[in-house]
Amino acid sequence: MSLIVVGTMAFDALETPFGKADRVIGGSATYVAWSASNFTQPIKQVSIIGGDFPQEELDKLGKRGVEFDGVEVVKDGKSFFWSGRYHLDMNTRDTLVTELNVLEQFNPQLPESYQNCEFLMLGNLAPAVQISVINQLKNRPKLIVMDTMNFWMEVAMDDLKKALGMVDVLMVNDSEARQLSGEYSLVKAAVKIQEMGPKYVIIKKGEHGALLFNGKRVFFAPALPLEDVFDPTGAGDTFAGGFIGHLAQTGDISFDNMKNAIIVGSAMASFCVEKFGTTRMQELTKEEINDRIQQFVELVNFEISLV
Amino acid sequence: MSLIVVGTMAFDALETPFGKADRVIGGSATYVAWSASNFTQPIKQVSIIGGDFPQEELDKLGKRGVEFDGVEVVKDGKSFFWSGRYHLDMNTRDTLVTELNVLEQFNPQLPESYQNCEFLMLGNLAPAVQISVINQLKNRPKLIVMDTMNFWMEVAMDDLKKALGMVDVLMVNDSEARQLSGEYSLVKAAVKIQEMGPKYVIIKKGEHGALLFNGKRVFFAPALPLEDVFDPTGAGDTFAGGFIGHLAQTGDISFDNMKNAIIVGSAMASFCVEKFGTTRMQELTKEEINDRIQQFVELVNFEISLV
Repeated sequence: MSLIVVGTMAFDALETPFGKADRVIGGSATYVAWSASNFTQPIKQVSIIGGDFPQEELDKLGKRGVEFDGVEVVKDGKSFFWSGRYHLDMNTRDTLVTELNVLEQFNPQLPESYQNCEFLMLGNLAPAVQISVINQLKNRPKLIVMDTMNFWMEVAMDDLKKALGMVDVLMVNDSEARQLSGEYSLVKAAVKIQEMGPKYVIIKKGEHGALLFNGKRVFFAPALPLEDVFDPTGAGDTFAGGFIGHLAQTGDISFDNMKNAIIVGSAMASFCVEKFGTTRMQELTKEEINDRIQQFVELVNFEISLV
Repeated sequence: MSLIVVGTMAFDALETPFGKADRVIGGSATYVAWSASNFTQPIKQVSIIGGDFPQEELDKLGKRGVEFDGVEVVKDGKSFFWSGRYHLDMNTRDTLVTELNVLEQFNPQLPESYQNCEFLMLGNLAPAVQISVINQLKNRPKLIVMDTMNFWMEVAMDDLKKALGMVDVLMVNDSEARQLSGEYSLVKAAVKIQEMGPKYVIIKKGEHGALLFNGKRVFFAPALPLEDVFDPTGAGDTFAGGFIGHLAQTGDISFDNMKNAIIVGSAMASFCVEKFGTTRMQELTKEEINDRIQQFVELVNFEISLV
């Protein structure tokens, strides 16, 4: 089923304990698209880029069924740029530079060809932009998944609350869930966030896995224990791409299938961190993905008989 | 099958963000016994206590099939005392007071009735004491599980390495695994620790669950997401008790059954943290335990078909 992905397409500069990458392709919509396109095509991308964004990167994504009618190109503008340095635990990072560039003027206009999409992935962006995209859709998608970050809780909480009332799934990390809800316990945080709108709350804990909450139901997926995590950049967006990609592929938005989607997302994220930027995502095969999902089955599967 | 438990029986004073407990019964062997006795009896306890240790606490454990022939009572001595304060995340704590008291002279003498035990749980103690117990057993148990802590890595590394060469399973938390191996990656840490002796390595990550490593095999069990963690004291020992209790109950030390044992241990630990000290452990029913294990099944179970 068809999928719209809204988010940034950008350049990143990264420092991790394992090395540096000066200017690699990044952005939330880029990672989501690389990940989701393994499961569903076409992907209708909504973003904004400068004239500096390499045509060959668009071509590579195009071959994966990613469409760019909704991507505004500002010929004399510069693409969004983010630079960060990761700490040894790879779960925390310092932002060194944020250059909004063309993102400052981002006011997405959905092309007519994007109407009637069944799945909508709203990558981390100003809540007002996320709301604008939802409002431009004549028919509400079957499922709307939204990412956000602490920054918007600080500068645009009213818009954020409005956006939360319009979506089905919120995807945040543990510290964001705590900040948004004012609760330290993630169980309590998930209850409060559900009261704000989204019936499904996914809390990502980086190397400690991810939780899915829906009413009284809860599902946990671990992160794959890896020898080394080279670069966590984009892991959350790659997770999101696997999650919504699997749901769009199967067309099944039941809680049980969301569990599978979380596993698929976790498997995709485990590849993402193996190399810098989107490198690992670009070389992935279907067989590798299936093997990795099978590793997750073995990692958590047990057969206990209660006595 | 029969089980020997070696460790402390002590008093704890605890401060958590939820309250204070001035002088509650604690100690590694106490928690292990409360937990394991739900699954296997008798439990042959090896410890040392002062005249101040309440007879009624021994009586309560006695009714659970715990035997005390191997517990030395120093009538005019004081039991081991530990006091600590937990931080908000409940994964970190400051030790406020450690009074070794009778523990300083602990030199366990195994009674004849303790011979031919099939399972041995070595709670956290000086490695020399752990070695002494192993050496007193005429027949090697079917499985020896050992706990330790960073303190012994700093003051008794040679003894610790010797002990590691004598046991089957090492159970440590993530920071201890890192310190012992010199590796930040837990996957690499588990490989190095296996080279030191124990073929099975269990790395506990508190609220983030536990990992079991054996060669190339790895299993992960989450901690149950709880609304509140009132007191994490003894959670690791309660986990150990559920783990070895299940193995002793079933007599099956295969990797597959160790997975189940980890789930049982995680379920028991999830009860332990609900109240101060051993309170929750003392009131537990078989039905509650089975319900909790079923919650773990639902928490991680998924059925994915690869396409």
